[in-house]
Amino acid sequence: MPRVGIEPLRRFVVEVLEKLGAPREHAEITADVLIESDKRDIPSHGVARLERYVKDIQAGTIDPKATPTILKETKTTLVVDGNAGLGQVIAKKVMERVIEKAKESGMAAASIRNSNHYGIAGYYAKMALAKDLIGISITNSAPLMVPTFGRTVVLGTNPVAFAVPAGKERPFFFDGATTTVPRGKLEVYARLKKEIPLSWATDETGAPTSDPVRVLKNMIERAGGGLAPLGGSGEEGAGYKGYDMSAILDILSGALSLGAMGTEVYGTKGAPPGVCHFLAAMDPAAFVDLDAFKARMDSFIQMLKNAPKQEGAERIWIAGEKEWLAEERNRTEVPLDEPTVEQLKKIGAELGVEFKL
Amino acid sequence: MPRVGIEPLRRFVVEVLEKLGAPREHAEITADVLIESDKRDIPSHGVARLERYVKDIQAGTIDPKATPTILKETKTTLVVDGNAGLGQVIAKKVMERVIEKAKESGMAAASIRNSNHYGIAGYYAKMALAKDLIGISITNSAPLMVPTFGRTVVLGTNPVAFAVPAGKERPFFFDGATTTVPRGKLEVYARLKKEIPLSWATDETGAPTSDPVRVLKNMIERAGGGLAPLGGSGEEGAGYKGYDMSAILDILSGALSLGAMGTEVYGTKGAPPGVCHFLAAMDPAAFVDLDAFKARMDSFIQMLKNAPKQEGAERIWIAGEKEWLAEERNRTEVPLDEPTVEQLKKIGAELGVEFKL
Repeated sequence: MPRVGIEPLRRFVVEVLEKLGAPREHAEITADVLIESDKRDIPSHGVARLERYVKDIQAGTIDPKATPTILKETKTTLVVDGNAGLGQVIAKKVMERVIEKAKESGMAAASIRNSNHYGIAGYYAKMALAKDLIGISITNSAPLMVPTFGRTVVLGTNPVAFAVPAGKERPFFFDGATTTVPRGKLEVYARLKKEIPLSWATDETGAPTSDPVRVLKNMIERAGGGLAPLGGSGEEGAGYKGYDMSAILDILSGALSLGAMGTEVYGTKGAPPGVCHFLAAMDPAAFVDLDAFKARMDSFIQMLKNAPKQEGAERIWIAGEKEWLAEERNRTEVPLDEPTVEQLKKIGAELGVEFKL
Repeated sequence: MPRVGIEPLRRFVVEVLEKLGAPREHAEITADVLIESDKRDIPSHGVARLERYVKDIQAGTIDPKATPTILKETKTTLVVDGNAGLGQVIAKKVMERVIEKAKESGMAAASIRNSNHYGIAGYYAKMALAKDLIGISITNSAPLMVPTFGRTVVLGTNPVAFAVPAGKERPFFFDGATTTVPRGKLEVYARLKKEIPLSWATDETGAPTSDPVRVLKNMIERAGGGLAPLGGSGEEGAGYKGYDMSAILDILSGALSLGAMGTEVYGTKGAPPGVCHFLAAMDPAAFVDLDAFKARMDSFIQMLKNAPKQEGAERIWIAGEKEWLAEERNRTEVPLDEPTVEQLKKIGAELGVEFKL
């Protein structure tokens, strides 16, 4: 896979967004969040998303100039209107405030309405680590999940990220959706003409299916079916737990901000999607001695790593460990697949921004 | 199944615990939490647990007289030592304090170490509903979960409960473990001589197995294997998400209180088990208008209920709905299976407490 220098890539993304009317600061924040995803080997949320942002800005559903408005503020809480701005700009600015408030009050949380796609959830949770806080980042998203016993998509893949500082060990850093797999994984299997496990998706009748092409076609035609919650469709694998978790994350994001929820997110064609987020931070030092906490995290992580392995398995992974290793590998360059490189070239050509990598 | 009057059942449990040295208040709290589980049709955490509590009190690993000690307190946080008391007593008293603090500060949380089994997690989350708060209740537990790529149990079935007030609709009320199924479900399948789905448990080599008898035997002999995380063993069903969630809940319970984690919980035979909890509450009114929030919850719940159903399915359930219906059914009597009735009679005979139901 081609490897692309981070500095020229960042300059390119910034210039593209500026061409579309984003202030320099907004363009830089958005570029940083996208590239962080590529650095962590999560290409689905990296610069491959730029094309969609370009289209949404051109369609007027993202206002690249908009800054968030605080609707209500207490010592521990914030309610924010994103004013249909760039999700990354809104979430980063609000998380900075949440972190300040948590440092003062022990914990704090913001519920945000009327935002847009904000990239990887983990970016904002990770911001808390620099201040020795626990960071939490949650978002709702376009409906792609079929609830247990449902036939159509109602909830988003609604991810949660959870970052916890450690001492000698790398931070514990979870970032995952509440569906078993993302839509992109179905696309990979469709390209490879492979069957998918029955726990991943349902067909237009609501029954589990092994045919990824059928699911993707149904999704485009809104014919029914979609992604299964974590645990799978039906009750055998306890998929209702994934469904309930997705609903919980929607409540924290959309209900606490009186924003869009479920099918209302991306619910009106041509209108801003109304994506909602929930960002929180908690100070371990408001509970116990910080160094003792970090040492406790270290010994817990070591307990997991050192536990006996499954026959044939080499290691037990800690949440975020694979991504930390990727980040260490991708300090100056990130891997981009050919279609993404072509896409960026096309965007550059259209907007008159030179794509020299 | 025999149905037993709640009032005489409560009197019996209270008397048994008093005989064992529990102050009246402690006995009453414990009885109420146990019976609430039976009322909600969750017999695994109901009065069927009394036998184990009796044994633990007799063995000295539960001190029925102990009250919790606050080790540290800020406006939003509490760290508590349970002093090896009854889990129900500790958790109820601490949750009362958490609720007061959340009413004052918008949100609050307690991390508790050195406690015992506290019954259904949901009991304490539900307490928040009476004050129009969102309630969260988390605990670690005896290690029964094999982490992804592991061979032996390291983490608990670590449940989380999450209760949210609504308006005309019943509250949204999730209470679930981070394993696909509880150990009790394997016991049911073993009795019925039925195979279990491969997503439920692993054998002594760490491989998925359909044989519940083998898993239960291995558990007793500590030969390896155990329950799979939500999503199943391995990566296909994204079981690492269930594993990571269990770890997150252990961190909030055990790391923030500097308590026991993972294999340390119930880690030393004859010593108090060191169970840890995390209890939190959040005030929707600190974010938005309370009535508007409740109306938003109602419309979200209705959106889910009214969504198209899977072919052959009659309804889409909301978290807690089945249990609310059970509670409405079990206002004055609860169903108890024969073995539980026999067990209670035996306890009564041993302790000289009349079992007249």
